[in-house]
Amino acid sequence: MDKERFERQLAFLMEADKLKNIYRQTYTQVDDLPPMPEDSNVTKPYPRRENDAEHCSTLELITAVFAEYSNEPLDVLKTMKMVLVHDIFEIDAGDTYCYDSAGNATKSERENAAAKRLFGLLPKDFEEEFFALWREFEERKTPESKFAAVMDRIQPLLLNLSRNGISWQEHGIRYEQVAGRNALLKDGSKEISDYIFGLLDDARDRGILPD
Amino acid sequence: MDKERFERQLAFLMEADKLKNIYRQTYTQVDDLPPMPEDSNVTKPYPRRENDAEHCSTLELITAVFAEYSNEPLDVLKTMKMVLVHDIFEIDAGDTYCYDSAGNATKSERENAAAKRLFGLLPKDFEEEFFALWREFEERKTPESKFAAVMDRIQPLLLNLSRNGISWQEHGIRYEQVAGRNALLKDGSKEISDYIFGLLDDARDRGILPD
Repeated sequence: MDKERFERQLAFLMEADKLKNIYRQTYTQVDDLPPMPEDSNVTKPYPRRENDAEHCSTLELITAVFAEYSNEPLDVLKTMKMVLVHDIFEIDAGDTYCYDSAGNATKSERENAAAKRLFGLLPKDFEEEFFALWREFEERKTPESKFAAVMDRIQPLLLNLSRNGISWQEHGIRYEQVAGRNALLKDGSKEISDYIFGLLDDARDRGILPD
Repeated sequence: MDKERFERQLAFLMEADKLKNIYRQTYTQVDDLPPMPEDSNVTKPYPRRENDAEHCSTLELITAVFAEYSNEPLDVLKTMKMVLVHDIFEIDAGDTYCYDSAGNATKSERENAAAKRLFGLLPKDFEEEFFALWREFEERKTPESKFAAVMDRIQPLLLNLSRNGISWQEHGIRYEQVAGRNALLKDGSKEISDYIFGLLDDARDRGILPD
């Protein structure tokens, strides 16, 4: 073992662990909750927000399960690595809510500096691989990045729908905004796009996503 | 799209989301914490325990980064899928602390019933694939399952070491127990095993893991 190499990998992994401290706008589910551990510092009652590590964990699983719906043949391992690293810059740059236009204007610069610092903890080969995966994800030109974008969009959307659109209501989000943000689904998976837009139309009809 | 198939996949994914509610004995890190969101229901101060979804998320990343240290050539995608599904039964069966002998005696039966129900939500092909991956993980006979076991063992250990062995001290765990539980590391990665035992010896010398 090249100990210096291993310890660079380890330093990155311990730093990446801080994704567990970055909370998102999406709430976790509330059905059939087990009792909280008595010494937990998570207060009752639910709901609580989910964090970036939880988000990534679900992205891994839905990518593995939904890969068959990609428009184009997919390198599943590459896609899973891509979704794993796609949010790591948020350790420095924070989570920017997808419908926050002001925050999104300065997003790119902050994220780039963060990605450089964080991936820079790794040995050179991994630094280059992960930085390239992240850029590829952002550019959405390859089958893997188009499909990863679908996973990244539908994960919070499905959770939010399971809670009757609570995050949309908190932020006064309307159908047009959600439809606009999800217009890219069809580039990665026409089948999933059709299904999701069916859910959005239904949400509008039920009045949980106003027109 | 076969809508029934898609909705079975979706039902499984929404159920698997409950891993976010299963809390483990391991604590998250405490360095450089960002401010909590004001409306968060996670109380200050840290520490807090980590949950199964967070555990899986880290396992995915360390598997991607440490795969090169496997004793034998590794199918990385298979290993990543294996660690993703290896704890899903805990949604029904709960987390059994690794040093809890009474809990571990009844563990297998509870886990088997849970795995059957949870993987049974999926279409038949995925049910069989995931059930087989889980059995393979439990049996630890293949390169992938031996290496997945290394990841599953060292993830909480490294976190716990970063917090000076807090979980060991809470449960009165001694060096021999930790060494015994980690004897299998060498089957998946001799290099990682040597490194980790170096850390354990150091922890013993520093008095945070009593002899």
